[in-house]
Amino acid sequence: MKGNCLIAQSGGPTAVINNSLCGILKQAMHTQKAGKIFGAKRGIYGMLHGEYANLTHLPSTVLDRLRCSPGAALGSWRCKLSQADVVRMVEHMRSAEIRFFFYIGGNGSMQVARMIEQTAKEMGYGLTVIGIPKTVDNDLCLTDHAPGFGSAAKFIATCVLDIAMDIRSLPGSKRVTIVETMGRNAGWLAAASALSGEGDTDMPPLIYIPEAPFRTDRFLEDIQSQYDRYGCALAVVSEGIRDEAGRLLAEDSIAKDPVGRPQLGGVSAYLARLVSGNTGLQGRNVLPGIWQRSGMLFSSRVDVDEAYQAGKAGFQLALEGRSGVMVSLRRIGKNPYTVAYEHVPLSEVAGRERTFPVEWYDSRSRSVSQAFREYVAPLIQGEVLVPMNNGLPVYQTI
Amino acid sequence: MKGNCLIAQSGGPTAVINNSLCGILKQAMHTQKAGKIFGAKRGIYGMLHGEYANLTHLPSTVLDRLRCSPGAALGSWRCKLSQADVVRMVEHMRSAEIRFFFYIGGNGSMQVARMIEQTAKEMGYGLTVIGIPKTVDNDLCLTDHAPGFGSAAKFIATCVLDIAMDIRSLPGSKRVTIVETMGRNAGWLAAASALSGEGDTDMPPLIYIPEAPFRTDRFLEDIQSQYDRYGCALAVVSEGIRDEAGRLLAEDSIAKDPVGRPQLGGVSAYLARLVSGNTGLQGRNVLPGIWQRSGMLFSSRVDVDEAYQAGKAGFQLALEGRSGVMVSLRRIGKNPYTVAYEHVPLSEVAGRERTFPVEWYDSRSRSVSQAFREYVAPLIQGEVLVPMNNGLPVYQTI
Repeated sequence: MKGNCLIAQSGGPTAVINNSLCGILKQAMHTQKAGKIFGAKRGIYGMLHGEYANLTHLPSTVLDRLRCSPGAALGSWRCKLSQADVVRMVEHMRSAEIRFFFYIGGNGSMQVARMIEQTAKEMGYGLTVIGIPKTVDNDLCLTDHAPGFGSAAKFIATCVLDIAMDIRSLPGSKRVTIVETMGRNAGWLAAASALSGEGDTDMPPLIYIPEAPFRTDRFLEDIQSQYDRYGCALAVVSEGIRDEAGRLLAEDSIAKDPVGRPQLGGVSAYLARLVSGNTGLQGRNVLPGIWQRSGMLFSSRVDVDEAYQAGKAGFQLALEGRSGVMVSLRRIGKNPYTVAYEHVPLSEVAGRERTFPVEWYDSRSRSVSQAFREYVAPLIQGEVLVPMNNGLPVYQTI
Repeated sequence: MKGNCLIAQSGGPTAVINNSLCGILKQAMHTQKAGKIFGAKRGIYGMLHGEYANLTHLPSTVLDRLRCSPGAALGSWRCKLSQADVVRMVEHMRSAEIRFFFYIGGNGSMQVARMIEQTAKEMGYGLTVIGIPKTVDNDLCLTDHAPGFGSAAKFIATCVLDIAMDIRSLPGSKRVTIVETMGRNAGWLAAASALSGEGDTDMPPLIYIPEAPFRTDRFLEDIQSQYDRYGCALAVVSEGIRDEAGRLLAEDSIAKDPVGRPQLGGVSAYLARLVSGNTGLQGRNVLPGIWQRSGMLFSSRVDVDEAYQAGKAGFQLALEGRSGVMVSLRRIGKNPYTVAYEHVPLSEVAGRERTFPVEWYDSRSRSVSQAFREYVAPLIQGEVLVPMNNGLPVYQTI
């Protein structure tokens, strides 16, 4: 393995994205097979401008603390890329003699990784490209799940459990609580809230996902019926739920984000108003928003470890001469839960989305199947001891 | 001390309200001075209907687990009370030979406690009434702070710190994040978010409290200027911020709650739309809602202990023959931080609100003073080891 390495983080951060960065770095240090190791400052932005941080001699103590720090330590960025942009990125890499490129990201990022690999090839520049999966949405194909999802799932399940404890202690208050999760097109995170309903509170939340068409009349009936039964009501909705015509709820009033997608986050407020206006109950919403991807105290031990191992596995793939692949997690054991780190072609994951399997969702009871519970439960196991000082977490930046 | 005890929890729960319940119970068990100990089921509701749970022989293991459980374990309730209701409550207490009444609540509840005490007196029924302070809003008078506030403050400071880590890693994304805290008339919780800005992220959030008139033009300027400086912007607003005429923002569109108060929670969404519509930036909001009063994993050790000690102190006051008083915390040491548990007349706290001191707020920089930081920092210290199973907290109900 000759040449330098470049690592970039992409898209929205997760609570464990820095673990994948650290996994790559640790494996590079351990094997001593890499030349210099750079990090693209602010992701694509740094790649477009050749702005790299030299990470070669990052102390181990910094790495250990980065593993308990949310946000993307290298910085990240979102923009639409032209072919000319990609050429420019490869040229910057060529100037810095980078032969190994690691891209930590979701399905959009894997598309970019693929473009980079192909463009380098066309330019006659030998570049190894490895994708490391990352997304709280769990919508990456060809991997059992994506690092980042487990911690966000644990965050949401804890949030919904805590809230259930609160509202169950105020029965008859006429209040309906609607929790909104991330999930543009995929209901994985909303579905994970089902884990909250297995303990003492004994009230499963009503779950609404983008994969099942949303009907306002049915929703209001569900709410009323849960309220009548429990004296309170709790619904969990994906930000991207859609009506039977495939339109986002209140789509007309939704602005666009920098890459032209509807800027979601707010459907729970809309539904809360709907409840207040159409029933004798009062809706209110809880919107954890970007906290669900950055709440380090809720990260799961399993997810943290897997994100780290995925980084290490990515470096090993590069060592073995693989390119144009993404690290993929395959579940090889159920009891005890174990995964193997394999790889899949970027071409087969790039730009594709893996939605929530319809057979795991019951649109009558607004709940999820036992099969999904068994799928998701191992991913939220274990806690991380985040260093605390003066009552708050101590985070590392670079 | 002869006669039975009744304990009731009132209003919105906090993460530590069960600690005050446990403190009373533990002290009663320890001193063996009480007769039977009852808990009013669902607070005022149980008092109106004479529905009490017998807590006399609650096992210690249950109490220990209750101390790590959010929600009001006895249940709670909100409604407007007439004088006839209060008479009815006292009559139920007389039937059950209750001579000691402990009411865990906020300023509205202290008003109720006072009515109960006076009514019993008028009815010639000897009843000792003790108030135990509880509120996440910290708006109770004549106590250094209220149990419940420290944990909610820690929750908000952690939330804002995590989010700052996330958004600082995506500079230039044109996004503005607005976090909304509880605080109908008092800005204590929003102000506590300032603690997040003292670590590595080094970006103090812009803070808006109900005590300082809100001006839209100034807000948009603040946001733009923070964005220009940091490449991102983060504001924290109390749900009850008001304009210069004292009107809630978007007041016309706000529904009323069961006791006739405007149902708050949503001003951050309004402000996010304002940002998107009036700047080149895109607003988005984070609304932890009732999670900030039930997020047990964020509870502060100090707050948990103080809530418990306040319960114990309340029982001791009853033993000493006091009545018509609320337990009050007085800060007697700064370094190390220590408090004494004293008492104040219900008449002096009932129905009064303690707002955030204007001298602790700088409406130019939208930040808080060092004096406030020194006031609030001790209250968020220390963590609580919540029992976990299968990746989620294990909570106790009774």
